[in-house]
Amino acid sequence: MAEVSTKPEYLLGVDLGGTKILAGVFTRSLECVATAKLSTKPQRGVEAVIERVARCAKDAVDEAELTMAQLAGLGVGAPGAVDFESGKVIFAPNLPGWKDVPFRTSLEKQLGIPVFVENDCNVATLGVYVAELKSKPRSMAGIFVGTGIGGGIIINNEPYSGFSHTAGEVGHMTLSVNGPKCGCGNKGCFEALASRTAIFQQIKAGIKEGQKTLLTDILGDDLEDLRSGDLRKAIRRGDKFVERIVNDAAQFIGIGTATIVNLLNPEIVVLGGGVIEALQDEIMSEILDTVKDHAMPGSLKGVEIRASKLGDNAGITGGAVLARREVK
Amino acid sequence: MAEVSTKPEYLLGVDLGGTKILAGVFTRSLECVATAKLSTKPQRGVEAVIERVARCAKDAVDEAELTMAQLAGLGVGAPGAVDFESGKVIFAPNLPGWKDVPFRTSLEKQLGIPVFVENDCNVATLGVYVAELKSKPRSMAGIFVGTGIGGGIIINNEPYSGFSHTAGEVGHMTLSVNGPKCGCGNKGCFEALASRTAIFQQIKAGIKEGQKTLLTDILGDDLEDLRSGDLRKAIRRGDKFVERIVNDAAQFIGIGTATIVNLLNPEIVVLGGGVIEALQDEIMSEILDTVKDHAMPGSLKGVEIRASKLGDNAGITGGAVLARREVK
Repeated sequence: MAEVSTKPEYLLGVDLGGTKILAGVFTRSLECVATAKLSTKPQRGVEAVIERVARCAKDAVDEAELTMAQLAGLGVGAPGAVDFESGKVIFAPNLPGWKDVPFRTSLEKQLGIPVFVENDCNVATLGVYVAELKSKPRSMAGIFVGTGIGGGIIINNEPYSGFSHTAGEVGHMTLSVNGPKCGCGNKGCFEALASRTAIFQQIKAGIKEGQKTLLTDILGDDLEDLRSGDLRKAIRRGDKFVERIVNDAAQFIGIGTATIVNLLNPEIVVLGGGVIEALQDEIMSEILDTVKDHAMPGSLKGVEIRASKLGDNAGITGGAVLARREVK
Repeated sequence: MAEVSTKPEYLLGVDLGGTKILAGVFTRSLECVATAKLSTKPQRGVEAVIERVARCAKDAVDEAELTMAQLAGLGVGAPGAVDFESGKVIFAPNLPGWKDVPFRTSLEKQLGIPVFVENDCNVATLGVYVAELKSKPRSMAGIFVGTGIGGGIIINNEPYSGFSHTAGEVGHMTLSVNGPKCGCGNKGCFEALASRTAIFQQIKAGIKEGQKTLLTDILGDDLEDLRSGDLRKAIRRGDKFVERIVNDAAQFIGIGTATIVNLLNPEIVVLGGGVIEALQDEIMSEILDTVKDHAMPGSLKGVEIRASKLGDNAGITGGAVLARREVK
């Protein structure tokens, strides 16, 4: 339980995803003292989602037995293109209606504390870099495999966001020029080959073609509540069909990682996101083998590639780091 | 003609390629006062190539009516992995026998001036950045399409070489996972799809299958002396077969460029190398259209993509820049 104090010495981090909202209260030394979770319900529209983000943040503060006055600021990661200066979400492919949304202003009005908005994968990368790696490596790439695939880059110990603040968009690297159609309109993007969405689509297509899988035993024929964790269960019980599809995705994650290693030669690559967290034991060795096959000689020398230890908390931790950096 | 002076106020730049060696003498303000050219003849072995590099450098100095004592230093780009500190070429895929070659020491012995060795594409990127762009953009990516495909990166106004000095290896990004075999052992690398080598292979394969082309009228059935410039001639005379193959390569150059834009969001991307120089008028618009199709929304905002104006001289210019940076 937090000490009784009204000084704004705590930080809020929020991770807004297409499916769920996570909020966490952190001390200034980035210890997580409470979390809260809500479903996003994006179909209810922009205003409703913002209200849910604010509610989730308040829930976490209440969970920590604090009041909002004790919070110095909120850092929030949004799943799309963000204008950091204005705090606007320019667009968010998985959130219907999110175009030029004044996310920062709306949240500040509802919460009464300073809010800082960034792209979710940049925020998660910052969280891993500062909280997990203690800001030690000079360069890092973060690759987050979940509903979509995104990334973040650290260069010279600082987040690198490029000329128009869009760097790190790893999900739309073309890996298979004649591959499956991607939501972005192109074919064979990393995201269309290895995200949870891509994996689920392949499983559903297989079932339609008469493929037998333990998943339908667990979840019923429509697989309505399918989650990454179900894939793990099916593989552990010997489901070769699911294993093959997940293995293919792991190979693409390895190829995507190798492309980043070849291009950026970062000191460390950290993999995160729901797919990595749920299937880490099943896929990390395949990923690493594929990276070794596809990275150029010398480019892996001394380079570490690992799954994040923060798991699902990378985003909220990064939000707290962002707030700590920005709060005056 | 250069002024008579024995002060070491000039700089040498050398570009060692798999086919030819180029050398240039530059003033400290990077004006090129003389060049020389020799074929590489890599099959004659490591010592012979180093002797030819030294000879080519001496030829350029003689051409400028200078003596070696008037040269402050030599910067040389080598086509492979280089250890900058020791000046060793660790390996060079297109130069047989080049493994752990003490290139710097050998050249310093033969020329009597300080020598600095770097990867050829890093050197060419530096040349374009400093001489053509006047070091103005904060970030830049250079993509050089020739015998192979390589690249270089500038971040925060400085060359970025990554953790183990291998960054910028754009040629081995996987763009087509089931594509043609690459020299690196993988399939569908950028280099295996769009380099001059890849284009020539496709043309030769087409001819074997009975495809008619003006190239055999120009060069004979074996296409022994085929160069990028011949492709331009054939296309301009209406050779649809060559046009299609070159157009496919242009699309892959566009996809590769878009991947770099998505990942790094640099302020400017400069394309160079023999294929770009020879076919610029034929391929740049296809390249730009493909980049637009494959780059994420927002990531091209304000970003310039252009062919280098330095052409074949990017490497020697970069060598001179490197020497100017490093000479004490």
